[in-house]
Amino acid sequence: MGIDIKIDLNADLGESFGRWQLGDDPAMLELITSANVAAGFHAGDPSTLRRTCAEAVRRGVVIGAQVGYRDLAGFGRRFIDIAADDLTADVIYQVGALDAIAASVGGRVGYLKPHGALYNTIVDHEEQAAAVVDALLALPTPLPVLGLPGSAVLRIAADNGIRTVTEYFIDRNYTDDGRLVDRRRPDALIDDPDRAALRAVEAARDGRAESFCTHGDSPGAVRMARTVRTALVEAGVAIGPFVG
Amino acid sequence: MGIDIKIDLNADLGESFGRWQLGDDPAMLELITSANVAAGFHAGDPSTLRRTCAEAVRRGVVIGAQVGYRDLAGFGRRFIDIAADDLTADVIYQVGALDAIAASVGGRVGYLKPHGALYNTIVDHEEQAAAVVDALLALPTPLPVLGLPGSAVLRIAADNGIRTVTEYFIDRNYTDDGRLVDRRRPDALIDDPDRAALRAVEAARDGRAESFCTHGDSPGAVRMARTVRTALVEAGVAIGPFVG
Amino acid sequence: MGIDIKIDLNADLGESFGRWQLGDDPAMLELITSANVAAGFHAGDPSTLRRTCAEAVRRGVVIGAQVGYRDLAGFGRRFIDIAADDLTADVIYQVGALDAIAASVGGRVGYLKPHGALYNTIVDHEEQAAAVVDALLALPTPLPVLGLPGSAVLRIAADNGIRTVTEYFIDRNYTDDGRLVDRRRPDALIDDPDRAALRAVEAARDGRAESFCTHGDSPGAVRMARTVRTALVEAGVAIGPFVG
Amino acid sequence: MGIDIKIDLNADLGESFGRWQLGDDPAMLELITSANVAAGFHAGDPSTLRRTCAEAVRRGVVIGAQVGYRDLAGFGRRFIDIAADDLTADVIYQVGALDAIAASVGGRVGYLKPHGALYNTIVDHEEQAAAVVDALLALPTPLPVLGLPGSAVLRIAADNGIRTVTEYFIDRNYTDDGRLVDRRRPDALIDDPDRAALRAVEAARDGRAESFCTHGDSPGAVRMARTVRTALVEAGVAIGPFVG
Repeated sequence: MGIDIKIDLNADLGESFGRWQLGDDPAMLELITSANVAAGFHAGDPSTLRRTCAEAVRRGVVIGAQVGYRDLAGFGRRFIDIAADDLTADVIYQVGALDAIAASVGGRVGYLKPHGALYNTIVDHEEQAAAVVDALLALPTPLPVLGLPGSAVLRIAADNGIRTVTEYFIDRNYTDDGRLVDRRRPDALIDDPDRAALRAVEAARDGRAESFCTHGDSPGAVRMARTVRTALVEAGVAIGPFVG
Repeated sequence: MGIDIKIDLNADLGESFGRWQLGDDPAMLELITSANVAAGFHAGDPSTLRRTCAEAVRRGVVIGAQVGYRDLAGFGRRFIDIAADDLTADVIYQVGALDAIAASVGGRVGYLKPHGALYNTIVDHEEQAAAVVDALLALPTPLPVLGLPGSAVLRIAADNGIRTVTEYFIDRNYTDDGRLVDRRRPDALIDDPDRAALRAVEAARDGRAESFCTHGDSPGAVRMARTVRTALVEAGVAIGPFVG
Repeated sequence: MGIDIKIDLNADLGESFGRWQLGDDPAMLELITSANVAAGFHAGDPSTLRRTCAEAVRRGVVIGAQVGYRDLAGFGRRFIDIAADDLTADVIYQVGALDAIAASVGGRVGYLKPHGALYNTIVDHEEQAAAVVDALLALPTPLPVLGLPGSAVLRIAADNGIRTVTEYFIDRNYTDDGRLVDRRRPDALIDDPDRAALRAVEAARDGRAESFCTHGDSPGAVRMARTVRTALVEAGVAIGPFVG
Repeated sequence: MGIDIKIDLNADLGESFGRWQLGDDPAMLELITSANVAAGFHAGDPSTLRRTCAEAVRRGVVIGAQVGYRDLAGFGRRFIDIAADDLTADVIYQVGALDAIAASVGGRVGYLKPHGALYNTIVDHEEQAAAVVDALLALPTPLPVLGLPGSAVLRIAADNGIRTVTEYFIDRNYTDDGRLVDRRRPDALIDDPDRAALRAVEAARDGRAESFCTHGDSPGAVRMARTVRTALVEAGVAIGPFVG
């Protein structure tokens, strides 16, 4: 008998830019249930986004807007001390852009996933966290938001009636206080698929989060996602999107 | 007795970018009926767009998406030999982004106005004209498109059941074959408001176009728009948006 | 009898970008002795830089490289948590680019002036301050660097044998610990030219700094610079560049 | 007995951008004698350029400035109708930036190689060709320029006393009139290393050009370059840079 748990698997996709290819979106889309599609500010030219959304729609994978700082050179991985009003407008702009792209291929944006340095910033930075929530509240329909358990953004979103979805990174190490280890440190990433799979099954059993994130842009990304997915299924965990 | 003609007045707004201010959007919005709001690729950071859209909504001015080539350094005024698929995706992206920004302040995008070099290119460039129309067809609801009478984009749009709106530039000189004189030529622009006003009244009487464009970014832009509007009203021309 | 003091007057120039004009560079160049010319990352397209450098050369004004974070949308005024290696390379790149532009019109870059958020960051941020100094050390000839008295960047530069030049902002308020008041605060800027002129004369008498900065991009910039320069001259202060 | 011919082998390097990797620069640098290093406008962040220049210096490979249109999204492969003055300034800016980067690791820029659409444009576009030559003439020392035999840019450069170097693309097909087949056509590229090697040896014997270009950014780039180099050496062709 299984353990009657359902977990969403998400990954970052659509992160190519023009000539520069990153990740194997079609392969990842066979394994995940939610695709965090870049929205153009840290990665993702419109043609790439459209192709990735079309592939996601074809496979029934839910599309999320992966919004980031406006920083192609830094891939959105550098904190920017942006004013709250500007951040709110930047997030609305990105979500709207991706939603039109998704709609053009029969899909829609179903949730929000902040990217990179923005993701980590709004764990603790109250002003930027509130700015992101303000963007959600300014959309025709507020989208659910993926985030770190205990983060400022999830708290402020919940306080404003927005659906929050907790997330666990199966291939990232955590600090003692529940933050992600900085990417600049050597122990930030877990490369071993088997170790990640073990962590995933454990995290599923512990009910640590509703969605698990696996990275889409590393060389072993597809193998990692496949190993983790298989382990979860074998452990009796149901894999399915958190958006209806 | 008047001449029973209705003309829309449009101008390019939202063309500031970060620290760089361009035009006097609030003053122009008192005079025009359709605002071609930049969408971020040639001009217009998201905060600027949001402010301009809010001002337009407050005054009941219709918002159009002023889409352009991705070229901030060239302000969208340089032809780019972009592939059709990429142009289609770029237009969808920009329209969606601006529509979300407009929605966040109670408005919506009501039409499409290609900008600068893209505008002039799709007068004759069949492939790029078709790519812009493909973008309109890929939106949830195809938007009306503003363009030069006789242009490829209006013909292809009409062939595809899209509403087309002809436009006359009151402060631009035309070549003998009905194209705009290149901005790099000294006689491209008409600076004298009274001369522009005379042209406008004449063009209205001739039924030359449904919408008149006056430029929003020159030093005398507000005076020009006011002079033209006054002359049209005095000539018995009704001023009103073409979008319902 | 005069007070036998010599002060350099510097201002930020070359900060237009494509269609967007900022400041009145020719007028400012009549008043200052050192021009901090933008280098393309926060402002300044190459054509603008070339025109500004040509004007500076014609008037014998020393050209400095005003280097900033890669952030056109934020005009370099937002802190970016950039890695030290990347910052070093970004600074070298900008200095080299501007130096070639200056050389093409008969000039050369004579000093370095970090811009905006980078300027303020390297007052205290040891790692970024060291990264900027590393860039100077990697140039064929290390350039003198302008900075805030007591800043980390001046200390590290001096420790490495680089000439440091202290600077006083005549139109910015300071905090009690000698930092610039944040631009987002209403009391950041001093608008009254007479008040700024008084401060300038006082600062010259106190020997507070070798170079005084006046802003080039505000509407009253030229009047401010002229008032301050006149007051200094009347007080017997000699105005001249710090670079030979 | 050999055929007493010397050929330079060049390839495009430094074309990564931030997170996006392209090509295997260290491996290519073992095979070529001239490295066309991107200069930031179509590809190449400053850190990437610095690493690539350092690797080139270490192996004694000559560094050239690979300048392009300002178009990251299009990788410089789309014609832009840029004004001559702006193009001249853009080229000076890029050359200066790369030269400072090269100097910071003990090298220098030894020649100019226009990239992508700019390369192809200035085969026939007199105005842009002259603008590129104007940039070379505005440098402290005019650099030699690589180009297509018979191109406008080589003719204008030679007329102005600039050293010109003819180039043959071993892995690109040509049209009957000596232009490169458009990349958008399926027969643009030659993928088979052996066929390319045969062409290279033949072209060397025919004295078709002084430098041969092999592409650095395709998956088989290293194998292609190695096969061609080996074939040339075996045919008795000396491989060496054209810059002293």
